[in-house]
Amino acid sequence: MSNSKKPESSKAYLAGLANQVPSSSRRDFLKKGIKFSTGLAATAATSAAISDNLPPNIPSWSKTLGSGVVSTPYGIPSKFEKNVIRRTVPWLTADKISSISMSPIQELKGIITPNGLVFERYHAGAPIVNPEEHRLMIHGLVDNPLIFTMDDLMRFPSESVINFLECPANGGMEWRGPQMEALQFTHGMISCCEWTGVRLSTLLAEVGVQTKGKWILAEGADGAAMSRSIPMDKALDDALIVYAQNGEMLRPEQGYPVRLFNPGWEGNTSVKWLRRLEIGDKPWHHREETSKYTDLMPDGRSRRFSYEQEANSVITSPCPENPWGQKGAYEIEGLAWSGRGKIKHVDVSIDGGVTWRPARLKGLVLSKALTRFSLPFKWSGAPLLLQSRAIDETGYVQPTLNQLRDIRGTNSIYHKNSIHTWQLQSNGKIKNVQLK
Amino acid sequence: MSNSKKPESSKAYLAGLANQVPSSSRRDFLKKGIKFSTGLAATAATSAAISDNLPPNIPSWSKTLGSGVVSTPYGIPSKFEKNVIRRTVPWLTADKISSISMSPIQELKGIITPNGLVFERYHAGAPIVNPEEHRLMIHGLVDNPLIFTMDDLMRFPSESVINFLECPANGGMEWRGPQMEALQFTHGMISCCEWTGVRLSTLLAEVGVQTKGKWILAEGADGAAMSRSIPMDKALDDALIVYAQNGEMLRPEQGYPVRLFNPGWEGNTSVKWLRRLEIGDKPWHHREETSKYTDLMPDGRSRRFSYEQEANSVITSPCPENPWGQKGAYEIEGLAWSGRGKIKHVDVSIDGGVTWRPARLKGLVLSKALTRFSLPFKWSGAPLLLQSRAIDETGYVQPTLNQLRDIRGTNSIYHKNSIHTWQLQSNGKIKNVQLK
Repeated sequence: MSNSKKPESSKAYLAGLANQVPSSSRRDFLKKGIKFSTGLAATAATSAAISDNLPPNIPSWSKTLGSGVVSTPYGIPSKFEKNVIRRTVPWLTADKISSISMSPIQELKGIITPNGLVFERYHAGAPIVNPEEHRLMIHGLVDNPLIFTMDDLMRFPSESVINFLECPANGGMEWRGPQMEALQFTHGMISCCEWTGVRLSTLLAEVGVQTKGKWILAEGADGAAMSRSIPMDKALDDALIVYAQNGEMLRPEQGYPVRLFNPGWEGNTSVKWLRRLEIGDKPWHHREETSKYTDLMPDGRSRRFSYEQEANSVITSPCPENPWGQKGAYEIEGLAWSGRGKIKHVDVSIDGGVTWRPARLKGLVLSKALTRFSLPFKWSGAPLLLQSRAIDETGYVQPTLNQLRDIRGTNSIYHKNSIHTWQLQSNGKIKNVQLK
Repeated sequence: MSNSKKPESSKAYLAGLANQVPSSSRRDFLKKGIKFSTGLAATAATSAAISDNLPPNIPSWSKTLGSGVVSTPYGIPSKFEKNVIRRTVPWLTADKISSISMSPIQELKGIITPNGLVFERYHAGAPIVNPEEHRLMIHGLVDNPLIFTMDDLMRFPSESVINFLECPANGGMEWRGPQMEALQFTHGMISCCEWTGVRLSTLLAEVGVQTKGKWILAEGADGAAMSRSIPMDKALDDALIVYAQNGEMLRPEQGYPVRLFNPGWEGNTSVKWLRRLEIGDKPWHHREETSKYTDLMPDGRSRRFSYEQEANSVITSPCPENPWGQKGAYEIEGLAWSGRGKIKHVDVSIDGGVTWRPARLKGLVLSKALTRFSLPFKWSGAPLLLQSRAIDETGYVQPTLNQLRDIRGTNSIYHKNSIHTWQLQSNGKIKNVQLK
């Protein structure tokens, strides 16, 4: 084919192929053709496939005018993506107003979660808060209690960070064995966004925290008055009072108009619809830090104030929702994260942890953010036991389930960050299995 | 106030304040209270304001249950944000199917533009493309022409990058003087997203580009068959074949299901709804690189193939849409970007460029991405001429309008990246003015 070909006939040429080459045959040569970045020539079948496919045939959408600008002043996804949505597990909770939805991480690319797909967690439903009427009070052991309007908060210098947000119950249904045959349900209580707000330390400097002030009670404006006790060290370290998410104001389900955000800590501590910060000298032991967000240890004691989300990872491709269709070249891809800092290294195993291969970390590797890992792989069609193992910059190594159970027992709900196993069957389908 | 106060009465206490302290008086003490991060105590008026505002008064949304999870399986913004939308200028084009909409950058935070607010540019409207039927052909001076389905493209190893995307006409209405009294219209033809796809160099290795192949014609599947000639060097450098944006599949208006993406280059070269890449030995001189995207120079010749978006910046706060209400402490904030790499430095002037102060670069500073800059400022109420000046890592300094006109004259439409001036009036309002 020469480059002097006119666009019209080239276009027709393509269209002919697009509509007439049987998918299977195209797949066959293409599969053979894929030599990731090796530059090896594709097979003869390719040229044949092209030269056999005249006459012209142009797709309908190339023959008509499309929709104009601002047809959707605030845009929405393509109708062909209608299955990429948040989902909940009906049997998991008694009511949707005190429940959780999961992000479709099996469909997500890169590290940013679009706002429409960020997982939800409510204790009394998502309130509709009028930002004009909303106030944030900081009081207690301070020299000068202050009340902030949204305009007040947004006048302070802002900071933006890309961090993951995870519910500590992520994966918690599987402490006692596989329950879920979908990545969205085994690991979907996590998202990663760019968060913008004012440093909590800046506001605390305004009110003047007294020397006795060591803890902060954060309380939400929702019907549950959701509240958690936060140590002063975290508040002065990297905690933010956040009003924006991925460039725009918070979504209602994410705490609009303002929330606390504690990077790397369990999501419930990042109290949404934030209305009050009280400075005290000890934790409050409120409802959500006694009845919930605690774990029963083997010795009968309760593990509490377990704030940090320890290093975790999961293979997102393949997964139950995205099986492999046929033998050939694929990218084994996944996500890793740590509440303690950057992901330093990720290993992938195809034999259930007997041997490990180093994965490549792709794109941005940010502290307390989702990190993509990759391992190009040529599948022979043999069954595999696929696992990933994350190591963070503190040297923490993601544990096996047994290692975790040795310390935490089997009565926990939260903080299950053990190595996950996907069983790839010879038909390409994926099963959720748990190795001892 | 002691920390032994019960949550109920504290909550009531806050509510009382929230609804009863007159906004003006709160603003007064708060304004005095704001000493960015200095930790200086707020004024006595603060405590007074609080202790005067019993009895209790709890906002309605704290007394009811909110909506449950997956009430919106794909979430949408708060109803209170309905004015944060893309907008177009009716007189700018004859028809909305060959027009542009602008992003509300005056409202955006951080560096990520949410997908619903990314500016739009069409040459024949946005087509609705069925991803199952869509094909990408790579042909011309190659050893093995190939046709890719979306499944084929998504099997290759993916890469994700955060880059800005800008129309070269951004600001183009103002070559001959201020036209627009809104930041959304002076600089809104820009967005910044995380883009995910396969490296074009990977696909070119698959087809085997012949030694004579120096240029690529990229053609879209829209009604305009929008096409541009791309030099092979760019294709082999950092060009991507992109199918995802901020974690999810491209929006229809952004080229769903697949587009070319040329980091740092004028937006029209990142051809949307991409259906064909033809390898040739010279540029094609198609419609959109002759009638459009060229500039008439003073010597009567046309400046063409002006791909790179040179360093640019603008102050986003204050701006015509976000005036300053009163004297006191503010953050002068803005955005800077360069198609040639990272932003190295940004200066801010309050006197129309007579003197300059270095701004702080906030958050991530990424190559070919929007970069936030900040200068805390105490406004006395005097009129100001606010400007920003970006310098990128190549040493390129954003020019004044005169410097730009000396080279390009006044007949250009595209690539107006000169220093922009906001006139802050003593009433806090902002006027778009142009200094010689």
